[in-house]
Amino acid sequence: MKVKVVVTLKEGVLDPQGKAIQQTLVGLGFSNVDSVRQGKYFEIDVNESDEKKAKIKVEEMCKKLLANLVIENFNIL
Amino acid sequence: MKVKVVVTLKEGVLDPQGKAIQQTLVGLGFSNVDSVRQGKYFEIDVNESDEKKAKIKVEEMCKKLLANLVIENFNIL
Repeated sequence: MKVKVVVTLKEGVLDPQGKAIQQTLVGLGFSNVDSVRQGKYFEIDVNESDEKKAKIKVEEMCKKLLANLVIENFNIL
Repeated sequence: MKVKVVVTLKEGVLDPQGKAIQQTLVGLGFSNVDSVRQGKYFEIDVNESDEKKAKIKVEEMCKKLLANLVIENFNIL
């Protein structure tokens, strides 16, 4: 089954890429964009039919590889 | 209000980064990972209290800047 994960920077961690996007949007005329934060998104196809077990596996993957827990949070959708 | 967007590669478009992650996960012992696709995630804070209007704005932003519609799809959450 497919498991979807979002990895985002923790609050308080600077996000220069998001800031650049926000400034570009304002430059394009979207003047009411207050802030943009960018994160990563993963769709992981796990060969496991049990949803709960698949999500536990994906949680382990996030901790070991996909997210840097010092500065990032992950959220399994 | 905050609007969340996911931008993903269209089906059929090669995703070498996702492939590299999949191979690394297998190398780490997650042998039942069949495939990984990576996308981008944005949290956009729009100064607009009406949800519908905010989402219409964000749709425009996706078309103009955030997504390359030739190879990517976007999904406003």
